[in-house]
Amino acid sequence: MSTITVSEIAAEVGAEVEGDGARRLSGVAPLERAGPEHLTFFAEAALRSRAEGTTAGAVLAPETFVAVLPDTAILRVADPRAAFARVLSLFHPEPASVGSVHPTAVIARGVEMGPDVSVGPYVVVGEGTTIGAGTRIEASTSVGRAVRIGAGCRIAPGVSILHGVEIGDRVLVHTGARIGTDGFGYAPTSEGAKKIPQVGGCRIADDVEIGANCTIDRGAIDDTVIGARTKLDNLVHIAHNVIIGEDCMIVAQVGIAGSSVVGAGSALAGQVGVADHVTIAPGARIAAQSGVIRDVPEGATHGGYPAQRHSRWMRITAASARLPALLRRVAAIERRLGIRGGDEHEDAAVEDGAA
Amino acid sequence: MSTITVSEIAAEVGAEVEGDGARRLSGVAPLERAGPEHLTFFAEAALRSRAEGTTAGAVLAPETFVAVLPDTAILRVADPRAAFARVLSLFHPEPASVGSVHPTAVIARGVEMGPDVSVGPYVVVGEGTTIGAGTRIEASTSVGRAVRIGAGCRIAPGVSILHGVEIGDRVLVHTGARIGTDGFGYAPTSEGAKKIPQVGGCRIADDVEIGANCTIDRGAIDDTVIGARTKLDNLVHIAHNVIIGEDCMIVAQVGIAGSSVVGAGSALAGQVGVADHVTIAPGARIAAQSGVIRDVPEGATHGGYPAQRHSRWMRITAASARLPALLRRVAAIERRLGIRGGDEHEDAAVEDGAA
Amino acid sequence: MSTITVSEIAAEVGAEVEGDGARRLSGVAPLERAGPEHLTFFAEAALRSRAEGTTAGAVLAPETFVAVLPDTAILRVADPRAAFARVLSLFHPEPASVGSVHPTAVIARGVEMGPDVSVGPYVVVGEGTTIGAGTRIEASTSVGRAVRIGAGCRIAPGVSILHGVEIGDRVLVHTGARIGTDGFGYAPTSEGAKKIPQVGGCRIADDVEIGANCTIDRGAIDDTVIGARTKLDNLVHIAHNVIIGEDCMIVAQVGIAGSSVVGAGSALAGQVGVADHVTIAPGARIAAQSGVIRDVPEGATHGGYPAQRHSRWMRITAASARLPALLRRVAAIERRLGIRGGDEHEDAAVEDGAA
Repeated sequence: MSTITVSEIAAEVGAEVEGDGARRLSGVAPLERAGPEHLTFFAEAALRSRAEGTTAGAVLAPETFVAVLPDTAILRVADPRAAFARVLSLFHPEPASVGSVHPTAVIARGVEMGPDVSVGPYVVVGEGTTIGAGTRIEASTSVGRAVRIGAGCRIAPGVSILHGVEIGDRVLVHTGARIGTDGFGYAPTSEGAKKIPQVGGCRIADDVEIGANCTIDRGAIDDTVIGARTKLDNLVHIAHNVIIGEDCMIVAQVGIAGSSVVGAGSALAGQVGVADHVTIAPGARIAAQSGVIRDVPEGATHGGYPAQRHSRWMRITAASARLPALLRRVAAIERRLGIRGGDEHEDAAVEDGAA
Repeated sequence: MSTITVSEIAAEVGAEVEGDGARRLSGVAPLERAGPEHLTFFAEAALRSRAEGTTAGAVLAPETFVAVLPDTAILRVADPRAAFARVLSLFHPEPASVGSVHPTAVIARGVEMGPDVSVGPYVVVGEGTTIGAGTRIEASTSVGRAVRIGAGCRIAPGVSILHGVEIGDRVLVHTGARIGTDGFGYAPTSEGAKKIPQVGGCRIADDVEIGANCTIDRGAIDDTVIGARTKLDNLVHIAHNVIIGEDCMIVAQVGIAGSSVVGAGSALAGQVGVADHVTIAPGARIAAQSGVIRDVPEGATHGGYPAQRHSRWMRITAASARLPALLRRVAAIERRLGIRGGDEHEDAAVEDGAA
Repeated sequence: MSTITVSEIAAEVGAEVEGDGARRLSGVAPLERAGPEHLTFFAEAALRSRAEGTTAGAVLAPETFVAVLPDTAILRVADPRAAFARVLSLFHPEPASVGSVHPTAVIARGVEMGPDVSVGPYVVVGEGTTIGAGTRIEASTSVGRAVRIGAGCRIAPGVSILHGVEIGDRVLVHTGARIGTDGFGYAPTSEGAKKIPQVGGCRIADDVEIGANCTIDRGAIDDTVIGARTKLDNLVHIAHNVIIGEDCMIVAQVGIAGSSVVGAGSALAGQVGVADHVTIAPGARIAAQSGVIRDVPEGATHGGYPAQRHSRWMRITAASARLPALLRRVAAIERRLGIRGGDEHEDAAVEDGAA
């Protein structure tokens, strides 16, 4: 970890220095633990009091933050969190691809690599695959034939990228991710389900990030597509022919079934399930664990099962808590009115209704 | 991709050719994108109008489809989807196992391989394991000791098949799948949970398909079993001692807890959870995201939490949407009858009831 | 598998032998299938009749079990299941680490290994990593730089342990697990989500077990921590900055979002989701598939969505089954009172309420 001066940080984030710009910092730390050698930040006004007590060497603070910190340089910015993220890259630069292919890598014939491509130990690359400039492929990753990987990508250890997959530039693929797997497609026959060969493609656009142990199926005949700058958390499942737009956030353990569409700028929270052939319009937000079985309109926030307007689902959930008492209340009304207790015929009704 | 004549396709699917049987096709494409060199298909009557507009070289159509397509050969079949699947295998034949063992493969002593077994780079195979004729094991897959793998299997890259696992013929194991892992079994002791050695087996029958990044535990003492022709989608978890019958479809991210039984021909939709020691009788269907905590009768369609008759659960779900209004309606009745507003004592009731 | 006498087993579990202590047993089997060469056990009184019919060579039974089994030695213990687990280790001892590094392992400079460390084929270990005495690392596992792995650990094939991760003693990491992956952290910017470098650590305490294909993110700035003796089942996701206490049981496919805390001795059943920044107090139990979005008090049993007292949630679930009939009952009351049928204005109400 290199050391950086407060002034260098200020320049990076476009802030003025209030305090000692010459001080050298060696890293970052959370507000509670930051010492004189650390940069820290706070974004929420709620943290202002704690910020005033910090012993950090420098703090990234909201523009509204006014305080006298004798030993701490103050750097005011519009968005301290974003500024902090940018500075983190100064302290922890992505190691540049050293452009070496490990002698144990098995590279098939006809593989084209741009300048400064790094390939780690025990990587296997199939025939006719192309790898763009500065891309790093780490240990024991398997890349199939006729794959196209763009420039500036980082493919972590133990990844599988299957034949014909197309990956854009600056894509991060985390360890254990599987891209271009067969979709779950079968035709019923008298001898049981017969596999439908999955012959479509799988296209991952620029600046996408794919989490650890995710699975992304290739298309059945068409392609599966993940749009630019979309981020997938860990253990996400994307089925065949799914189209995900740009700038989506797909949180851990989400599953999206075949041929569904997720519009640009949508956010799916953890463990959401999306049924097949559903369209989620751009800018939608889906609450955690929801089951989306109908189309979601543009910009809508949906939740629950079946996923519906979140506000409505919240009201239903709240009302459900009052249901046991409501049953007692209705029974009391029936007694008052001399109506034969509902309990017997209700159950009968449920039964015949269910028949 | 080889080229095939329309007549050859017709012969494969047992259809008569209406049009130019000599035309050579180079591949398949969806109805919208098919050109003169493509075969396409449509199964739903709803698509007939689009089918009439196709520029495909040939189309697989339902027997009821009548149209004059000047540039498109028509092949009528009972089940266009199944026929299409069969033809896909003509255009995309499974590459035959070339029967070569990569020099980097680490094969322990006492490993028996049938003819035409292919073993990829960096594969590790343990002592006393047998691999049947024509089976392919791809890069960086790890096979333990005393494993039995049948004939005609394909084991994708980065798979783990642990000691003693038995796999039948023509089984497909997709990348990242883990077979024969330890079950989650512990005995409570005064020093915390003590691991119960998992010493059972794991048997995968013929023609099973196991999706990417699935985990299938070995039995604790007995075996975990997956029946013939059953298909597992990606990221499915099968716990120890689970018995899954033949011809089941287990969709992505399903989890089945210890010692549960899934009868033949059952279908579990995505993200379903099945509790331990539950029996799902043959031919059952479970809706997505359901939680199965009680036995499911033969042929039943269940859904929801706790999983119950799907029709009944649907009615409850529909009724729930009316619950907020129902609370208002009951309050109005209470006012009309001069019954003290339920809201206070109801909450009290909920509380003591909950105490 | 070695053979062991009934007396040796009795000594191991501290039981007296009723029957032939000299008989040699070669293994274990379930009650139904145990033969003269097998040890079996039963813990539940319900199984006593079956136990009386056993042909096992010896049976571990509850202290209350009284029977005359001519051909079966009886070993009475307080906890037959725990005793059986202990005996299993006699029949199936963990193979001791043979202390050999496979010639194909790529070990960077500055790696320190204690005595009797075993490293399998195609393992890659990064610079400055330390591995404790007797630890086994199996085939094709990738260990990053500056990792600390304690003594007596077993790391299964195809695991990824990323840079800087700290693992205690006697930790079991199952195949395909990913430890120290980047958290899902981004800062919104005008050019889309910008990745926040994840620079925190990941600490796994002694005697932890991590299931197959789990993903455990490193902290953003602070550390992600898994407490001693905690067990994770398969396909569990642990996000950045999560703190899990000691002696927790986390069942398959659970997902825990960023910065949440799980107190010591808690148990999360299968497919539970925990939102970010939630605290589950020690000794809590969460029912399967629940969604925890609020703090859970110490020792509480919660379930449902949103997770709440399990007893309360069960009452709500039971009441929901009566909801369709309740709607009919209320409509009948309204008719009796000449109240305009609720159905129209209720739907209106739902609509405006939702607007």
